[in-house]
Amino acid sequence: MESKRIAVVLLSGGMDSAVVLAIARLQGFACEAISFDYGQRHRFELESAARVARALGAAGHTVLPIDMRAIGGSALTDDIDVPKDRSDIGEGIPVTYVPARNTVFLSYALALAEVKGAWDIFIGVNALDYSGYPDCRPEYIEAFRRMANLATKASTESGAEFQIHSPLSEMRKVDIVRKGAELGVDFSMTHSCYDPDGEGRSCGRCDACLLRLKGFEEAGMEDPLSYVA
Amino acid sequence: MESKRIAVVLLSGGMDSAVVLAIARLQGFACEAISFDYGQRHRFELESAARVARALGAAGHTVLPIDMRAIGGSALTDDIDVPKDRSDIGEGIPVTYVPARNTVFLSYALALAEVKGAWDIFIGVNALDYSGYPDCRPEYIEAFRRMANLATKASTESGAEFQIHSPLSEMRKVDIVRKGAELGVDFSMTHSCYDPDGEGRSCGRCDACLLRLKGFEEAGMEDPLSYVA
Repeated sequence: MESKRIAVVLLSGGMDSAVVLAIARLQGFACEAISFDYGQRHRFELESAARVARALGAAGHTVLPIDMRAIGGSALTDDIDVPKDRSDIGEGIPVTYVPARNTVFLSYALALAEVKGAWDIFIGVNALDYSGYPDCRPEYIEAFRRMANLATKASTESGAEFQIHSPLSEMRKVDIVRKGAELGVDFSMTHSCYDPDGEGRSCGRCDACLLRLKGFEEAGMEDPLSYVA
Repeated sequence: MESKRIAVVLLSGGMDSAVVLAIARLQGFACEAISFDYGQRHRFELESAARVARALGAAGHTVLPIDMRAIGGSALTDDIDVPKDRSDIGEGIPVTYVPARNTVFLSYALALAEVKGAWDIFIGVNALDYSGYPDCRPEYIEAFRRMANLATKASTESGAEFQIHSPLSEMRKVDIVRKGAELGVDFSMTHSCYDPDGEGRSCGRCDACLLRLKGFEEAGMEDPLSYVA
């Protein structure tokens, strides 16, 4: 029996990375999901990630505790208010930016890839709807790939190369919703809100909720999540 | 009063990074030291790092717990024996290689730099005595720097650039010993051994001990540490 190619998939519990996992599975990869417990204000993201990993048939799911609070500097890890009802999403870099987050996440994914024998890393960055984050741009992903191929024992000894796949890069939220629906992703398992209430209900007003709701609306579909607002 | 330029300095507790911190201080930087609690087999490294940070006047010292054991794949974090009495140090990549370690370390240093307002990151990699590690090579450091300058809000918004300094890159161990002595580094505070005994005494036989001892010998100096062997 031919052994499957292995991929490491960054899984946040959100809608985007769930669709990425479904895409990687469709491409025939045995998927090692990796999620981070990075001092989120809430744990719903990690519970969602675990559900999504199981539902979409990940071969494994590693949850790494990482301490972004010790570093600080973000509304997602500090006591900074998450902005609500913004009409200027996409202009400038939002306060929900976490310093060097994707670099830290991809570095761990690279380490896991090397240990698991994977040459493919999937990440759900999106250059269109969230162009505010510098570490979501294609030129950043390409620079990380180049660095990764100089960083590891695996690539140095074998001459093989790591690939960083960002299949959502050029998709709008509406395209991501449609693609997920097409691949059978159960969106009720996913969690996007930056500021859910105590029962995990989405606020409906933060950037993540607004973009998600807009995507569903444009796709002519109903978001299965329950919202406070 | 003019405010000092800030630098983030990766501090392991070993001899090399202590000399790097002394060099950064000499260059006039206010130094934010950062160390990692990454499931070392022993805690002596972190105690050494704290002593060195104080002795050399670091402005701050952040210790980040990071879980490399969850990823595995190294004699430094797994139950793999640390090699002893090697005569072929420098040939091939040793089993003490930790997957993507410097990439993970530099990623956190980058995050801390962004939060602290630092544009300079110092790392004690060495391309000569330890050429076995791919993530110690100058071309790797340069690729990381390029990636870092695409990764962050700080560089994207200001157009300023991060610099990664590796002042030991072209130095042999003997040069590092001499430089440290010249700058008044107290080597008795540092810790290099991969496999110390229960009281923190160095084994004298792992790669790190052999290289350190050779450096002191060639410098005509005595290593102040106590060794088992």
